[in-house]
Amino acid sequence: MTRIDDVLAGQVRAGARLMRDLDDRIPSAIEELKKLYPHTGKAFIIGITGNPGAGKSTLVDSMISVYRAQGHRVGVVAVDPTSPFSGGAILGDRIRMQRHAGDTGVFIRSLATRGQLGGLSRSTFDVVSVLDAMGFERVIIETVGVGQDEIEVMKTAHTSVVVSVPGLGDDIQAIKAGLLEIADVLVVNKADREGADRAIRDLIHMLDLRNHIGRQEVEIVKCIATLGTREESGVVEVVRAIDAHRERSEDRFEESKRERAMSHISELIRGFLSDRANRAIANHGGLEDLAQKVVEGSQDPYSAAESVMKEL
Amino acid sequence: MTRIDDVLAGQVRAGARLMRDLDDRIPSAIEELKKLYPHTGKAFIIGITGNPGAGKSTLVDSMISVYRAQGHRVGVVAVDPTSPFSGGAILGDRIRMQRHAGDTGVFIRSLATRGQLGGLSRSTFDVVSVLDAMGFERVIIETVGVGQDEIEVMKTAHTSVVVSVPGLGDDIQAIKAGLLEIADVLVVNKADREGADRAIRDLIHMLDLRNHIGRQEVEIVKCIATLGTREESGVVEVVRAIDAHRERSEDRFEESKRERAMSHISELIRGFLSDRANRAIANHGGLEDLAQKVVEGSQDPYSAAESVMKEL
Repeated sequence: MTRIDDVLAGQVRAGARLMRDLDDRIPSAIEELKKLYPHTGKAFIIGITGNPGAGKSTLVDSMISVYRAQGHRVGVVAVDPTSPFSGGAILGDRIRMQRHAGDTGVFIRSLATRGQLGGLSRSTFDVVSVLDAMGFERVIIETVGVGQDEIEVMKTAHTSVVVSVPGLGDDIQAIKAGLLEIADVLVVNKADREGADRAIRDLIHMLDLRNHIGRQEVEIVKCIATLGTREESGVVEVVRAIDAHRERSEDRFEESKRERAMSHISELIRGFLSDRANRAIANHGGLEDLAQKVVEGSQDPYSAAESVMKEL
Repeated sequence: MTRIDDVLAGQVRAGARLMRDLDDRIPSAIEELKKLYPHTGKAFIIGITGNPGAGKSTLVDSMISVYRAQGHRVGVVAVDPTSPFSGGAILGDRIRMQRHAGDTGVFIRSLATRGQLGGLSRSTFDVVSVLDAMGFERVIIETVGVGQDEIEVMKTAHTSVVVSVPGLGDDIQAIKAGLLEIADVLVVNKADREGADRAIRDLIHMLDLRNHIGRQEVEIVKCIATLGTREESGVVEVVRAIDAHRERSEDRFEESKRERAMSHISELIRGFLSDRANRAIANHGGLEDLAQKVVEGSQDPYSAAESVMKEL
């Protein structure tokens, strides 16, 4: 048995190790990923985004339970710096992750967004591909949805879910307006809070504006995601709305696959280029030497960058 | 008079046009920027970041008034997708900008963060350099501070201000923990809200944790920024705390300049590489052709990216 066989058999340990090796850009791991590609394309990919504080992680956690009850295996890629899954849990609610810890039908992979310049989307693509090859029927990508990279990642999901929450004020509404362009399902979480109805009215109004520029229908779902306590409600409806969008958009699957391939290829090219640039900079004695000349006034940053480029 | 002379004389129209030409990457504009560099390094650069909803734009607006009253000319670069300055103002409070519209001592430049993949920091550097050369004594960079690019930008400011707001819940606290690493001044805005004292206690607690790993002192300032109405308070104290940090850190100015130069050079190299990659992709019949092969299963994304790289 090679590791490829183990991954295709859905073995969690083999998958986790391959992901780690891909992060470390070990050449043999990339060769393995190439061989896994023909086995991908079966997973249904769901993007979840929304402002910090909207309760995305809790919603994802509750959705996992719904999918598990339906008999689906679920993979999660958390690329949200505020997510307890991805290390934002400095104030400690890492416990959420442990809820599914004993369940081999659930695989959660966190991606650090700091110190990984430009590599975020690339890693996401790699992890989604591995989860897909491992046979996870549902793959959820959780992101905070503010940066351009994250918007790019969201665009490649089959169904994009934007989570908002009542009463966060106008500034928040503005960011939602940007995210609205990519939303297939809108979730108003914490719907027992004051202002829920106003939030929904605002969303309907914004959708009306959007529909004037020819986008398809978007379902708005109220929910209260609370880690499966008795107060929880609406999560099944969120999953149902996602499935409904999936059915409506099945004729777009091929196109969605093409978009994902385009994003993936350009991410990879950018990554390769960045590696090459780092080597060229090292040949110039490193960035510090170049910067020193700028500080001393003997060179401007543009000329310094151009001198590195001449070597590539 | 060349345009360079006009920019150095602080002429708003010449500066705005140069910025636009730099955005369009017009070669002659880059040559002009190179000539402007020796005249930069005088501006005091302040980074303002914080969660959406923290009231950053209003605070920036109020700070402009304080600086103007002190006789300083102020440039602002808004790279926050939620900022009314940078086009998040779909729900309309563009009026804020107009408050300083007739004042030639204020220059606000908004940078779109969408559709400008990777170019965000580069544009910010360019705009800051032009504002610096134009003689603006204070340059404020406003960012939402979530993405890696934005954190990089913040790191290059002389003084980094992180704005938070009481009562946004734990999820928000987590993101602050990430931003805390770069904060020189912490502002608790909307300090008349319930939970302000708790927010400050939390911040002090987090700072204590941080100080164990050897960072210098950070001042925490309460304020209520309300566009100069009678309810406004604490904005003068925010400006004072920023000045105090500046004085404390004057021996770090050279280092800060070096860091900024390093970031700038690497941004430029990445931009040049990305241009080059786009040309190579075009030579391959474009991304769509490459993606089509992936969809058909005749090639995987890694092999597609590698084939483009071979041409570079």
